[in-house]
Amino acid sequence: MTDDVEPLPADSAPRHLAPGDVGLVQSHDFVYDRPFTFKNGQTLPGFTLRYETYGMLNAARDNAVVICHALSGDHHCAGWHSPADRKPGWWNNLIGPGKAVDTRRFFVICANVLGGCQGSTGPSSTDPATGEPYGINFPPVSIRDMVDSQKLLLDHLEIAGVYAVIGGSMGGMTALLFAIEHPRIVRRVLAMATTTRESAQAIAFNEVGRQAIMQDPAWHHGSYPRDGGPRVGLAIARMMAHITYLSDASLDRKFGRRTVPGAGTAGGSAAFDLKFEVESWLRHQGQSFINRFDANSYLYITRALDQFDLAYAYGSLEQAFAPVQAEALVVGFTSDWLFPLEQNRAIALALLRAGKRTSYAELATDLGHDSFLLESEQLYALVRGFLERDPVAFDFDI
Amino acid sequence: MTDDVEPLPADSAPRHLAPGDVGLVQSHDFVYDRPFTFKNGQTLPGFTLRYETYGMLNAARDNAVVICHALSGDHHCAGWHSPADRKPGWWNNLIGPGKAVDTRRFFVICANVLGGCQGSTGPSSTDPATGEPYGINFPPVSIRDMVDSQKLLLDHLEIAGVYAVIGGSMGGMTALLFAIEHPRIVRRVLAMATTTRESAQAIAFNEVGRQAIMQDPAWHHGSYPRDGGPRVGLAIARMMAHITYLSDASLDRKFGRRTVPGAGTAGGSAAFDLKFEVESWLRHQGQSFINRFDANSYLYITRALDQFDLAYAYGSLEQAFAPVQAEALVVGFTSDWLFPLEQNRAIALALLRAGKRTSYAELATDLGHDSFLLESEQLYALVRGFLERDPVAFDFDI
Repeated sequence: MTDDVEPLPADSAPRHLAPGDVGLVQSHDFVYDRPFTFKNGQTLPGFTLRYETYGMLNAARDNAVVICHALSGDHHCAGWHSPADRKPGWWNNLIGPGKAVDTRRFFVICANVLGGCQGSTGPSSTDPATGEPYGINFPPVSIRDMVDSQKLLLDHLEIAGVYAVIGGSMGGMTALLFAIEHPRIVRRVLAMATTTRESAQAIAFNEVGRQAIMQDPAWHHGSYPRDGGPRVGLAIARMMAHITYLSDASLDRKFGRRTVPGAGTAGGSAAFDLKFEVESWLRHQGQSFINRFDANSYLYITRALDQFDLAYAYGSLEQAFAPVQAEALVVGFTSDWLFPLEQNRAIALALLRAGKRTSYAELATDLGHDSFLLESEQLYALVRGFLERDPVAFDFDI
Repeated sequence: MTDDVEPLPADSAPRHLAPGDVGLVQSHDFVYDRPFTFKNGQTLPGFTLRYETYGMLNAARDNAVVICHALSGDHHCAGWHSPADRKPGWWNNLIGPGKAVDTRRFFVICANVLGGCQGSTGPSSTDPATGEPYGINFPPVSIRDMVDSQKLLLDHLEIAGVYAVIGGSMGGMTALLFAIEHPRIVRRVLAMATTTRESAQAIAFNEVGRQAIMQDPAWHHGSYPRDGGPRVGLAIARMMAHITYLSDASLDRKFGRRTVPGAGTAGGSAAFDLKFEVESWLRHQGQSFINRFDANSYLYITRALDQFDLAYAYGSLEQAFAPVQAEALVVGFTSDWLFPLEQNRAIALALLRAGKRTSYAELATDLGHDSFLLESEQLYALVRGFLERDPVAFDFDI
């Protein structure tokens, strides 16, 4: 996801008071203090998930909408932490009173994933056994572990029924697995710009990012101080990954071959100074990422992405989807070359073959993989329509 | 270009004796000992180009075919340096007696580019003024400088006429510029998988590679010992670039999600050991590259690629091509997403608009950008047909 920020106009009204905005929001910590066993068999004595909620839980406790974030996302998906914030939560355009995910009607929950670094327990958290960060002693985390830990958060919140699970990219994987693993409580699943297993190309890009991090001398086999670490390697990984989030066309539209002021043909080290605007933007993306993301979390989460493979895990996609009770909407974006249309279409087809109520939409965009984050009335209408559709009979289990 | 090698079968006949092969070949050095002024105005007291030739120059000295190599290529484009070589020159499938570029008829010349590191003068060469490698004191090199220096080699060889200039990727840029800058001696130009200017996405990938190199602490502002340097950064750059040379489909066909033996879900550092075959292949590509390529050359040549922009340099593509006397064949490959079909098609269209004899072909392949290197009877037939076509009246200038 892009980190583009626009400066706050000095004379504008506070944006957190705009109609349709959830306004100022706070994060909460869910502390699970019992042993948690990861899919690979390793156990932690407990964990914390940082999360946010918007809207009110209804009396039946069944109007929850769970938002699942992508690789570099977090729990802050709508609203503002402070009036001085330069930008709101990452899906603020979709979530709010009267918006496609209407917080007047739904109780929206979004948690930072297990293994993450925005407040949830992950490799940068302190291992109580040593007093040091877990580093690479943190158990390998899987999408399944992310789902299981979020289910414990839902139990803690005494959520009886999940009206919908929604996510794009890694969030789409998480949403699908939620509907598979907890079919009796998930009523709708909306997965966008996602896949049931990455291609070799996507794995290859992730591997180059991991190598950039692990071969940075400051990585030190995963043991580095919180204010240090492989910042160079992480920035390289982020810059490269960012190219895969956008399309050729959107980069050409946004930057083309425009040069930065003063770029010339000088020799010496000046020859490799900034020349093109796209380079300046890339370097900014790398630099801003290292201030908010932990390199070990990047290793763990990209591994979770690479190893996610529903057909392998359940025998076939149809078998994977067999237990699903939810209605599904799958949305692919024409310009997404990371998780391309075919991979999104394959999800919808397998759900249909498994006899599930499934809709599939392809949106023509030129923003690439990050299209699921775009401001698009078409996307809003799809989401709204899916959430407002008359429900079929469904008895929640809890 | 890929570095894939197949082990030599112990019981097979020496491959350099195979019919159609140019056999054992030797490199030569062209030493130009007068000042050479680069496009940016800087001057070197002289330079060396390492080159190879196959076939015989005819009496009229007009049967030369100039082969232009790509970013990571070199002058060794056909034959074998020794019977023990594990692989022949990089375009051995195209060049040889009876092959598409028939060395019984043509005198084939291929030089390592100025700025390169395979024997031609570049940043790793010794600066006579200091006794140290030029490093980043080497003048910024452009495709134009590569053409100009190769023209001096042709003068040295007393080539009266160039029957054809042929290249793919960066070699295609070089070939086109050769036909523009030396129209009176170039009779045919064949450009494949190339562009007249890179997209923002291609620039972005190159910039990530440069950053990986320049932020490697071993880069030392370009001053490093010949056996050291930013090997980590160069390997990262190469791994990433390699993904862009192939297609999603070819990576899926070649590796898919196959895992390497022993890959498991263990924790600790083992969590990030090799898991997928595509990772193993990538790491091999990175490691083999650092043993044959200079990191500063990588910086210089990628900058030359990024700054190449025919429309910008000549006012428009049509104006750029206006002086061309050569017949042109442009070949794009359907799966090339680095220099996609549209960019190849745009070359042919601009040549046609400029009134030039131009043919354009699109080959359906799934190998991506590296398709120009593939073993393809279709490609061979195109090249052969283009070279054997009855010539139009053309008087060489020299």
